[in-house]
Amino acid sequence: MDIKKGDHVVPIFNGECGDCPYCKCEKTNMCERAGVNPFMTVMVNDGKSRFSCKEGKPIFHFLNTSTFCEYTVVESACVVKIDPDASLKTMTLLSCGVSTGVGAAWNIANVKAGSTVAIFGLGAVGLAVAEGARARGATKIIGVDINPNKFIKGRAMGITDTINPRDFEKPVHECIREMTGGGVDYSFECAGISEVLREAFLSTHEGWGLTVILGIHTSPKMLPLHPMELFTGRVIIATVFGGFKGKTQLPNFAKECMQGVVNLEEFITHELPFEKINEAFQLLIDGKSVRCLLHL
Amino acid sequence: MDIKKGDHVVPIFNGECGDCPYCKCEKTNMCERAGVNPFMTVMVNDGKSRFSCKEGKPIFHFLNTSTFCEYTVVESACVVKIDPDASLKTMTLLSCGVSTGVGAAWNIANVKAGSTVAIFGLGAVGLAVAEGARARGATKIIGVDINPNKFIKGRAMGITDTINPRDFEKPVHECIREMTGGGVDYSFECAGISEVLREAFLSTHEGWGLTVILGIHTSPKMLPLHPMELFTGRVIIATVFGGFKGKTQLPNFAKECMQGVVNLEEFITHELPFEKINEAFQLLIDGKSVRCLLHL
Repeated sequence: MDIKKGDHVVPIFNGECGDCPYCKCEKTNMCERAGVNPFMTVMVNDGKSRFSCKEGKPIFHFLNTSTFCEYTVVESACVVKIDPDASLKTMTLLSCGVSTGVGAAWNIANVKAGSTVAIFGLGAVGLAVAEGARARGATKIIGVDINPNKFIKGRAMGITDTINPRDFEKPVHECIREMTGGGVDYSFECAGISEVLREAFLSTHEGWGLTVILGIHTSPKMLPLHPMELFTGRVIIATVFGGFKGKTQLPNFAKECMQGVVNLEEFITHELPFEKINEAFQLLIDGKSVRCLLHL
Repeated sequence: MDIKKGDHVVPIFNGECGDCPYCKCEKTNMCERAGVNPFMTVMVNDGKSRFSCKEGKPIFHFLNTSTFCEYTVVESACVVKIDPDASLKTMTLLSCGVSTGVGAAWNIANVKAGSTVAIFGLGAVGLAVAEGARARGATKIIGVDINPNKFIKGRAMGITDTINPRDFEKPVHECIREMTGGGVDYSFECAGISEVLREAFLSTHEGWGLTVILGIHTSPKMLPLHPMELFTGRVIIATVFGGFKGKTQLPNFAKECMQGVVNLEEFITHELPFEKINEAFQLLIDGKSVRCLLHL
């Protein structure tokens, strides 16, 4: 056990047990025991829940963390010890969206200085990709969203150019290819929409373009690509939690955030008391917030 | 011009001009000027053909090489100078199938010693993958084909285990996962069939499995994968000419073949006079030959 009472920790939905074949493989951040599993509603070791409501009826766990409450119980594989000097207010962002976006840029795409990037969907995850790409020295970071209000925050967080698809007759990938001499080096799909995924793929440069899928695709639609389109040299991959191995890599990522490599404060646009959680969700649904901090 | 009269050369369908942005990028073997293009029927510099039949009617070029004839004219970007001591009889195999298969194992998958491999389709390309994987020290190389005669040659060329899908009720990927404790490290699709592509993808191990597409998919069917299936950590990519930059890398590959790293002789199963070219094609169609050498 690497955690003791009083430690400052960040809970993670994609755990790292450290012992399974995945944890021992440097190519993946999956974990056999404590990896992300939306259908896992109990603790791994005894198959039981740790929560109940007044009548004793069990309340089930969700995504390994179950953090919409004052106290929680999680697998030790799902808590990461961080520097006690780090601001807990911003460190909570490392539990999901910011790590996912920044990690996609750093660990998966390995964005190079001077490169070009397109980001489809400017929610917290897309903005985190922008922060990650900016930190790596990308010179052109194109933000794509149908909500132009997203561009205001986007420009404060690394986005250098913006495209609202509704402003153009032609497909977005054509705009992007024209802006970049043939396509971007990296594109990131943060919308979870099949048609957007295809635009993201086609917006990269032939020969070396890389598309990273971060969006959750809930439609049954298959990949909107023909096998021969992969022969253009474009590559498409998906990532969970930005490729970060939580226990191993997050403490250092937290330090980098403390040093200002990534600007976490920008992500928190609202603060509300916990009782107003539904209002916080509405802000998110309406595209008005990036992240809302809930106070107990 | 790097070629002079009397040099021994190998023609390549995927040229390397050395000057374009693709040739200057280490991530791709595409070439803007002389890359593979099935619709290019003339010389690049003047848009004309160099061939005519008796009546003066032009005969068009095909795939940059046009080698079904006694003499040919090709772009200088499409000839590679090789060691004059190399056997021309076997070096011709480097022009396409063998480089494609071995290169997929070496340059694209980067097969590691002790790893596991599945190859779907045991024509010349699939067998070349097996040779490449064997040379890199893969310990289990599973050959999949519906023609059991392919297994005889396959076993002589690195295949350690064979699967005929017609011998099993269950899908091939289930057989392979059982044989390998969860899936192979690398799979290679050398059949150009959508359903086979899906089996190849599912036969790799979650977390780090890599599928390389080498087959030409002539059907309009889109990729038979759901976006969320990429979140399993499996990756799928395609490769032309095994990722080899012809001019830069083939001379050294030819030397390695001369040293016996890859056994080229095994690929030539038949030899016929040029007049019997149609008979040679029939051997190929019937699955009886790997490669047939045509003599003038």
